[in-house]
Amino acid sequence: MRIALAQINPTVGDLDGNRHKIAEYIRRARDLSADIVAFPECALCGYPPEDLLLKKHFVRDNLKTLRFLIAETKHITAIVGFIDPDAAGNIYNAAAVISQGKLAGVYRKEHLPNYGVFDEKRYFSPGEQNPVWLFDSAPVGVSICEDIWPADGSHIWQAAVGVRVMINISSSPYEMGKLATRRKLVAARAKDAGVYFVYVNLVGGQDELVFDGGSCVMNPCGKMIAAAKAFAEDILFVDIDPLPGAIARRERRTVMGLTSSAESGARAAVPNRIEPAQSKIERVYRALVLGTRDYVAKNGFKKVVLGLSGGIDSALVAAIAVDAVGRENVVGVTMPSQFTSGATLGDAKRLAANLNIELVSVAIKPVYDRYLEQLAPEFAKAALDVTEENLQARIRGNLLMAFSNKKGWLVLTTGNKSEMAVGYCTLYGDMSGGFAVIKDVLKTTVYALAAFKNAAAGYDVIPRSVIERPPTAELKANQKDQDTLPPYDVLDEILKAYVEESLSLAAIVKKFGQPDVVRRVVRMVDLSEYKRRQSPPGVKITPRAFGKDWRLPITNGYRE
Amino acid sequence: MRIALAQINPTVGDLDGNRHKIAEYIRRARDLSADIVAFPECALCGYPPEDLLLKKHFVRDNLKTLRFLIAETKHITAIVGFIDPDAAGNIYNAAAVISQGKLAGVYRKEHLPNYGVFDEKRYFSPGEQNPVWLFDSAPVGVSICEDIWPADGSHIWQAAVGVRVMINISSSPYEMGKLATRRKLVAARAKDAGVYFVYVNLVGGQDELVFDGGSCVMNPCGKMIAAAKAFAEDILFVDIDPLPGAIARRERRTVMGLTSSAESGARAAVPNRIEPAQSKIERVYRALVLGTRDYVAKNGFKKVVLGLSGGIDSALVAAIAVDAVGRENVVGVTMPSQFTSGATLGDAKRLAANLNIELVSVAIKPVYDRYLEQLAPEFAKAALDVTEENLQARIRGNLLMAFSNKKGWLVLTTGNKSEMAVGYCTLYGDMSGGFAVIKDVLKTTVYALAAFKNAAAGYDVIPRSVIERPPTAELKANQKDQDTLPPYDVLDEILKAYVEESLSLAAIVKKFGQPDVVRRVVRMVDLSEYKRRQSPPGVKITPRAFGKDWRLPITNGYRE
Repeated sequence: MRIALAQINPTVGDLDGNRHKIAEYIRRARDLSADIVAFPECALCGYPPEDLLLKKHFVRDNLKTLRFLIAETKHITAIVGFIDPDAAGNIYNAAAVISQGKLAGVYRKEHLPNYGVFDEKRYFSPGEQNPVWLFDSAPVGVSICEDIWPADGSHIWQAAVGVRVMINISSSPYEMGKLATRRKLVAARAKDAGVYFVYVNLVGGQDELVFDGGSCVMNPCGKMIAAAKAFAEDILFVDIDPLPGAIARRERRTVMGLTSSAESGARAAVPNRIEPAQSKIERVYRALVLGTRDYVAKNGFKKVVLGLSGGIDSALVAAIAVDAVGRENVVGVTMPSQFTSGATLGDAKRLAANLNIELVSVAIKPVYDRYLEQLAPEFAKAALDVTEENLQARIRGNLLMAFSNKKGWLVLTTGNKSEMAVGYCTLYGDMSGGFAVIKDVLKTTVYALAAFKNAAAGYDVIPRSVIERPPTAELKANQKDQDTLPPYDVLDEILKAYVEESLSLAAIVKKFGQPDVVRRVVRMVDLSEYKRRQSPPGVKITPRAFGKDWRLPITNGYRE
Repeated sequence: MRIALAQINPTVGDLDGNRHKIAEYIRRARDLSADIVAFPECALCGYPPEDLLLKKHFVRDNLKTLRFLIAETKHITAIVGFIDPDAAGNIYNAAAVISQGKLAGVYRKEHLPNYGVFDEKRYFSPGEQNPVWLFDSAPVGVSICEDIWPADGSHIWQAAVGVRVMINISSSPYEMGKLATRRKLVAARAKDAGVYFVYVNLVGGQDELVFDGGSCVMNPCGKMIAAAKAFAEDILFVDIDPLPGAIARRERRTVMGLTSSAESGARAAVPNRIEPAQSKIERVYRALVLGTRDYVAKNGFKKVVLGLSGGIDSALVAAIAVDAVGRENVVGVTMPSQFTSGATLGDAKRLAANLNIELVSVAIKPVYDRYLEQLAPEFAKAALDVTEENLQARIRGNLLMAFSNKKGWLVLTTGNKSEMAVGYCTLYGDMSGGFAVIKDVLKTTVYALAAFKNAAAGYDVIPRSVIERPPTAELKANQKDQDTLPPYDVLDEILKAYVEESLSLAAIVKKFGQPDVVRRVVRMVDLSEYKRRQSPPGVKITPRAFGKDWRLPITNGYRE
């Protein structure tokens, strides 16, 4: 039995575009005489479609598109994720099993995730009494993403009715460590049931989510016999030889027959391909690149613009942007103030030269001075404070937005997660932009990514001086981040405990000591909620990003 | 049997503050010899606590707080909404029935809303096998909010086991028309089961939600015999005389006995009070006032600042702000440009005088000119376009934020829903601020609210010239909103159909004709998603607000 894993990158809502892509991959699967080609969860509509699912006409159009696809799918069995409505008006997250130009049945997702970034119970009803299929003489079971994660998932009943090949179609978003977790799970499910396990994952960026692909096939011993690329579209072929079996009919589960492709007797063998796994830090980097590339392209932009301060955050974002959209589509802007040192300005220029990107310079002092003059009657007797610092950041934000408006470029913001967490960032200033590339990257990880980029390039693309200079916002004289914040290695550990692990203030102090520091950090995180709520989306890379994953009230009297 | 409906305004997360408030209302209920005092859903922790519920220590602290409350609750039965954890780590949206210093049982919400603004399945498990209580000889059933909305809700089994008094504790947010819907439902539930129905609702603002109170009691014929205030805290007493009954034990539902208050024999009768219902437009106005007041106060602000353009939106927001926080806590800022007419500037001054608020003036042209000079080398040959318009709006945003930073005032934004929907607003410009008072108010409703305010005041607080001038952003010469947008009465009808009713482009054209206009409006709404995502929260008043209610992807290829 030859199975093709079609790891595609659809666009949410673009039904026609997705259908053409699916049709193309079906052709590619048929060209190599695959019997079955499997697509990811919601391949037809993209994932997650969110409130598009509340539009009845969207569900109807998705069905219409599926019907076109069914008619053109000959000489192969295709498993395609789509939205399945029932007569009562409920909708299901479903897989169409298409065979020989006909719909051979539908599997409806049984376990609906409604935690983290997922809201599936907002939309879907759970499937019940799903069918399995007989392929020649091998019973084949289909399931969708979450269905195999709980201990009592669909794999349990499928094993019980005699399934020999399990195919799970997923749209499982990337986060650090997820690939290993996923593969361990799939291997365990294969081994426990003694079945071949085919796992097809989505790839591509969708707003704050990146789907990392990495589709794979496990044999009945739980050994990985094929693995697709990560962070790229791919079609992976695998030849397996499942034992024949009978389907024990239980609980009114229906059984339908499928047949192998016409060419199956004559076809040449395909070697099972296993794409090597990348290092953990490379995966983070590639997630950021793919997330940025797809946000730019899928929203109809070509070029991006960002402020280059000479600091490490903007240097890293510039490097990611170049890898995402090409150096000719990245414009850097330096916006020096009276507090900008020659060293940082020089670094910004060196970085732009290394990346070979266009660099524009606009000084902010003339505008800044004029603001202060206009405000002087009102602020006459007030001491300098954060007002003046924010004003400078906001002038920079306005200038970048002026480039965006005038030239049609997308503004990338350069703030990291440590800053976003404690509010060490200016609303309508450095937070201005369409996509916040590293908003989920802690400062310590920013350093690791810079080191990775330089190592991969074979030289210091990001100048050593950028990496070694103590971080500074340069919004007042001799300012250092560490005047206001604890050292980043300490800060990031506290943030991980508070944000990702939801630990209490008391538990964090127990872990790290420094009660005053911990209390101050936690308080800063709580008080910055209003800023984060107005930030642009950015790539989720941790188990808990500031986005759909983090739904804390702004108005909040809890202080522990 | 004397029941007190304690319609309180707690603060999300402020467990100690809420406990003191609850204790105070228990005292007030006891002072008038009530047998039972009922508080709203989640009274102890505020509603909705959102991801605070994912903090184990928050749930623990809520239990600890409940224990304090139990110990101090003597000589009365109190029904208090709280979070109830079980041994397996699940949590429930629950009601504690406290009697004579002891916990007499817990009811766990059975129906969990997971649509619209609600995410309860993200947090809670559904209750099962809930108890009812025998009060003297009358069977009393408790339920929580959603439990009585579905046809097969908790009221069905409670009626079946013989309940004579149903008490529903709710945190039901305001939207236009909701009060009538709610009261109709409660009346029907009372009549169908032939029971007294006590409905206690939350009051107060929490981020984008406003809870409107309006608690009420229906007699077994479905007639309203008592009704509390809307949009204000209240304690409503009602004396009812339910028929005694026995509890049919079914499905292992437990039964516990409660007793009447010690003074019940001697107490004087309380007349049943029915607060009159306000007009529909007054309710909208009061929702905006309460939502603004609570956002300001619960987030620790005292004063607010807003830009006064001389237009109707900012005039209305200023009037609301004065009613919310007092005229001495509202500062208006006029920021005239070269395009500002003498008439609009005069209107801004007249409005400020009518409202008796401080008015500050800062001209933006000097700063604007300096921006253009700085950008000239880059923009040399480009024609004037939206860039220059946005720049002016952003200078105004920066000035307001400078006041906010320097003086600690909260910035109120003044954009309405029609603008937010089609993106007729400037990100980091007029969208800059902490709270967007009228972001869910369509322009046609803005006019209705201005008329209401003037009628209520008995004179034109909002000058007639403000109301009658054709809307203009005054960001270029002779600009009118209607140069870019269809007339607001047409626009608002299309927006209602597209946003609130989720109709397709084709269905809207069928309804209103004008295919080109409809197509353009729908496209503008879709393309503005990225702006809305970065907007501050504001009061929800319609069935579907841009906020938790509206989860459309930014990256979205669907065009129907």
